[in-house]
Amino acid sequence: MFIFMGQDEFVPQIPYGTRDFLPKEAKQKRAVEGALAHLFASWGYDEVVTPTMEYLETMAVGAGNELEQHMFKFFDKNNRILALRSDMTTPMARVAATRFKESPSPMKLFYLTNVFRYEQAQAGRQCEFYQAGVEIMGVSEPTADAEVIALAVEAMLTSGLQKFQIGLGQVDFINGIMEQSELSLSQRQQVKQAMVTRNLVGLDEILVNSGLPEGEQKLLKNIPLLHGTKEMLKEAYSMVTNEKSRKALDNLSAIYSLLESYGVAQYVDFDLGIIRDFEYYTGMVFECYTPGLGFPICGGGRYDTMLNSFGMNSGATGFALGIERVLLALERQGIIGTPNCKSVYVGWGEDKLAAAIGQAESLRKSGQCVELALIPQSKIAAETSQRSKGYVSLVYVE
Amino acid sequence: MFIFMGQDEFVPQIPYGTRDFLPKEAKQKRAVEGALAHLFASWGYDEVVTPTMEYLETMAVGAGNELEQHMFKFFDKNNRILALRSDMTTPMARVAATRFKESPSPMKLFYLTNVFRYEQAQAGRQCEFYQAGVEIMGVSEPTADAEVIALAVEAMLTSGLQKFQIGLGQVDFINGIMEQSELSLSQRQQVKQAMVTRNLVGLDEILVNSGLPEGEQKLLKNIPLLHGTKEMLKEAYSMVTNEKSRKALDNLSAIYSLLESYGVAQYVDFDLGIIRDFEYYTGMVFECYTPGLGFPICGGGRYDTMLNSFGMNSGATGFALGIERVLLALERQGIIGTPNCKSVYVGWGEDKLAAAIGQAESLRKSGQCVELALIPQSKIAAETSQRSKGYVSLVYVE
Repeated sequence: MFIFMGQDEFVPQIPYGTRDFLPKEAKQKRAVEGALAHLFASWGYDEVVTPTMEYLETMAVGAGNELEQHMFKFFDKNNRILALRSDMTTPMARVAATRFKESPSPMKLFYLTNVFRYEQAQAGRQCEFYQAGVEIMGVSEPTADAEVIALAVEAMLTSGLQKFQIGLGQVDFINGIMEQSELSLSQRQQVKQAMVTRNLVGLDEILVNSGLPEGEQKLLKNIPLLHGTKEMLKEAYSMVTNEKSRKALDNLSAIYSLLESYGVAQYVDFDLGIIRDFEYYTGMVFECYTPGLGFPICGGGRYDTMLNSFGMNSGATGFALGIERVLLALERQGIIGTPNCKSVYVGWGEDKLAAAIGQAESLRKSGQCVELALIPQSKIAAETSQRSKGYVSLVYVE
Repeated sequence: MFIFMGQDEFVPQIPYGTRDFLPKEAKQKRAVEGALAHLFASWGYDEVVTPTMEYLETMAVGAGNELEQHMFKFFDKNNRILALRSDMTTPMARVAATRFKESPSPMKLFYLTNVFRYEQAQAGRQCEFYQAGVEIMGVSEPTADAEVIALAVEAMLTSGLQKFQIGLGQVDFINGIMEQSELSLSQRQQVKQAMVTRNLVGLDEILVNSGLPEGEQKLLKNIPLLHGTKEMLKEAYSMVTNEKSRKALDNLSAIYSLLESYGVAQYVDFDLGIIRDFEYYTGMVFECYTPGLGFPICGGGRYDTMLNSFGMNSGATGFALGIERVLLALERQGIIGTPNCKSVYVGWGEDKLAAAIGQAESLRKSGQCVELALIPQSKIAAETSQRSKGYVSLVYVE
């Protein structure tokens, strides 16, 4: 699509919800991604890179119907439906279940890549966006959940963010209450949807029309308000009678104790209203917020049934962090990014290129970032180039 | 697509021509890409990241009709045709022409990303593959071409390859001969196509049927044989009479002199039969081969008209290197990849997790890569885990 800007000038557009990362942002992106890759590796996680596209059936295993509507879909040459991956947990589960069956358990994997979803685009929410994430496969214990949350905290700190808070929930707390109640499957989904979108007015309306006893209505209505510290967990325990909900709370207590051992408990609050927008979560779920961003900067949870869909009977847990959201938060919080590494601009006068090439080469060998001029310049012109290109110093060969 | 493997086991496939990079390969890929990004930055190049998809019109500006058939195409929600980028030079030209109009010239940019083409898949030739590349925009002088070639040599060395040879050609050498001759446009395209595919029998047939005088037939037929050192250039000079071909040879001489200044001339031979498979090349073109790979590991050239198509009047030159091809060459040449960085496996007995967490944390702080066990183990079981997971040593907390 070209927009004609005048007599013979046009500006090619880029697709809706996509963006170019210009040098400053691309550099920051590479720095954050490099630091995260190093962090994950230092915790013993192995990187896996999967194709940008998957068969739709594969993506649908994890993503569920809701997300399928948001996928970029197209046909391959044999008229099979392909989709650009709309999350990375599903492809990682596919890889684990098909390629790592014989690997020693647990598997600790990480990825750093782009995913694609049709969304209403805004700052921090694009149709193509970058995620860093980890998955632990093969452990159903809270030890794995705690490691994942502790690593999420480290990832935030490594990215340069200091102010953030993790809300920790457990989908079985709500599931237990709803199973005990007389809600139909469609009503349950409506309740969940209202909670995911934090639509408390809508939740109220669904419950009023549900025919549930007033006590149960009140319990469900209050779930989004159940956030706080360990004291709140005790209170929530006294509010429920079913075993599933109580086990969910015990699970959160166990995870929290481990987070204290990791020394990261101060970053974590409980929030029983968090249930996340993927259907695949089966246990603890968490979201991390930072000031100045109205959506989570990272999030994750336990998904114990997805690997089973790929033929592997194994529990799993993990998180993903939004790279653009990190960059946006760093910018909005005024945190200084990667320092300028542009050291020397090498200019040269007529017939001096060969000497300038030698200069540039030896400066680079000493570890400096050096741009060599490609046309002869006067010293004054070289100074102008050096400054306008942001180099700290000039070497002029005359 | 699922292949049913037995009673209730299935293996989800991945799309044709795509692949998973498992940990060993992914690590190698990240190491090579990181080293190249550092190299390009140290030469003063700025990274740009563009969307994975572009409007088809944008891609078509650079890619030409031939490549358009090989693109992954689909519709956006407004029924506009999108294409997964089939090369990176076109999006980089779009960015330069639209976002950097006011930037100081020349622009030196780099990218490190995946591109997509429907191809007959084989080792080193996939439908999704990764490229690292640079572009210099705003310089029409041979100085830019020489820098690009010198940087390509450094990129090969940085990747770990030592044995490689660059073939350097100039599309105007052939263009000049064909313009002087009486060949029709379609005949010229046939001749070029035969040369791109190195189909010498086909070339012979086209020429025999061309109606050209025998001398001109012989000249064109001999072009693919015109490779060698500076002596060959002189010989070629004496074979042509048109100004365009002679200027092309002068251009190659000028570039070669600069490559001598860069100290990389020993990696470069002339090969006047190289014309590359993109229609956008307008000047010098080069390809780099390494033993054990039947296709170029990197290649590039000058494209002085593409920026004009995006509304910017500026010469440009650059190259791209195939990441998977580098990895394949390293493997086939038996060059040792990234060393194992897995240092310590931390195992623990019943109730010792809190202490083990502390151990793992302090080992990581000392710069080691540490995996923490997630279930209690006996010391013997921990030793087995340590060995099977490839960790150098074990710390066991009991």
